[in-house]
Amino acid sequence: MTSTGDKEANLATAARLVADAVAQGAELVVLPEMFNCLGSGAVLQAGAEPLDGPTSAWSAAVAAEHGIHLVAGSFIERDADADADVDEGAGDRRRNHNTSCVYGPGGARLAVYRKIHLFDVEVPGAEFHESAAIAPGDEVVVADAGALRLGLNICYDLRFPEVFRIQALRGATAVTVPAAFTAKTGPPHWEVLLRARAIENQVFVIAAGQRGTSAGALAWHGHSMIIDPWGTVLAEAPDEEGVIVADLDLAEQARVRSILPSLENRRPGTYEWPS
Amino acid sequence: MTSTGDKEANLATAARLVADAVAQGAELVVLPEMFNCLGSGAVLQAGAEPLDGPTSAWSAAVAAEHGIHLVAGSFIERDADADADVDEGAGDRRRNHNTSCVYGPGGARLAVYRKIHLFDVEVPGAEFHESAAIAPGDEVVVADAGALRLGLNICYDLRFPEVFRIQALRGATAVTVPAAFTAKTGPPHWEVLLRARAIENQVFVIAAGQRGTSAGALAWHGHSMIIDPWGTVLAEAPDEEGVIVADLDLAEQARVRSILPSLENRRPGTYEWPS
Repeated sequence: MTSTGDKEANLATAARLVADAVAQGAELVVLPEMFNCLGSGAVLQAGAEPLDGPTSAWSAAVAAEHGIHLVAGSFIERDADADADVDEGAGDRRRNHNTSCVYGPGGARLAVYRKIHLFDVEVPGAEFHESAAIAPGDEVVVADAGALRLGLNICYDLRFPEVFRIQALRGATAVTVPAAFTAKTGPPHWEVLLRARAIENQVFVIAAGQRGTSAGALAWHGHSMIIDPWGTVLAEAPDEEGVIVADLDLAEQARVRSILPSLENRRPGTYEWPS
Repeated sequence: MTSTGDKEANLATAARLVADAVAQGAELVVLPEMFNCLGSGAVLQAGAEPLDGPTSAWSAAVAAEHGIHLVAGSFIERDADADADVDEGAGDRRRNHNTSCVYGPGGARLAVYRKIHLFDVEVPGAEFHESAAIAPGDEVVVADAGALRLGLNICYDLRFPEVFRIQALRGATAVTVPAAFTAKTGPPHWEVLLRARAIENQVFVIAAGQRGTSAGALAWHGHSMIIDPWGTVLAEAPDEEGVIVADLDLAEQARVRSILPSLENRRPGTYEWPS
């Protein structure tokens, strides 16, 4: 989808797309980064909500309505304490997080992941300084969702193999990557990094990307993908709004992990991480 | 190249290929895994040499003859103490290592890397149990080579992003991957993993692969590659014996690291590695 600053319209689009996915048999649905509100820095700031705000209520209701697990892309989460300090001006914007939540089939919120890696880059045509408005999260998150254990990530996290590896070591069988990957960096980097994360961790990768151009923001790469643990792209979105669906074969994942046990062949005692 | 159990022939081929690369302007040359001897387990065992054996002498001489840095693929290194214990039978084979050495333009040996991750897999058509004959190394290695700092790897290491990341954090600007990647796993995994290592660490990747089929061993994927820090494939070998050459633009690497500072944007404090 292409989200804008119009939250009501974005949520209506997301609701329609989730229903479409469910109609195709989806039991788990992943939405893109900032699915509820996307635009300029001012739009993002104005659209910030507390964790238990209207977007969370919408997400819980949608999960419950369809009886699905929903990885609700991400939204800009306003820290509950920030309102009291609004006089501090720009300082309080640093209380916001870029947050991905998981909801269960009963509507309960099962997990909260706050984006660890903030997109601070000067790539020509894709300049962005996420840390000017967002404070990073501090916790790698996995969450059980039906037969899967999900590793939760957002967009720029994709460049950091550490978090995906830690999720796999904590038992993740699939990783989710809601994203607004830029149209500049997408063609050279999106698919290759997604496939590498699948192959090296022998996990399913479910990556939902913004596409098109959000007014006041950037042009997005789109090309949402579902990838299996061998690195095969099971489904890829064309460059238009829509839904992709795939069956995740857990028995085949177990077979891959058995015949090529690279997670077991790790040598953690030799990995001396510089401080 | 396609190495066999005939060491003399392998070294003659390697010498010819190095000379070809130098004639094309190469200042650094990377040979494939087990370039000096490759075949059945018995062939590998019979071909094992001490660190200062004939293959090392050959490598030093070739580097000095051409005044180049030479990453001498790998060879089976026999532990110096193993000869005394030969009566122990199979036990002494575990003293062998799969070892990649770097030689400088004067012929000096600059670094020794012993393969950390051993290829123990049951992929149909590519069954292999490297640890039956090889003991793993315990040290991640980087080595200065002219204007580059090299991270040294061998084949199966490619599936372990940890070592490449640690090399980058220790200042590696290029990584070498001598390989005998199998024809089964090569098509789905070789290029995507090589490109991901380049992109996520913003390093040059120089990967030299065995091709064809070595008698008594497996069929190899070939497709040697040189990749830049943006993930662009600068050169790729066709499916035949030969040399590929590329210019490594260090100024462009510095620009990439400046506009997209993902190594600086790491959040190591959040990476809680399971024990």
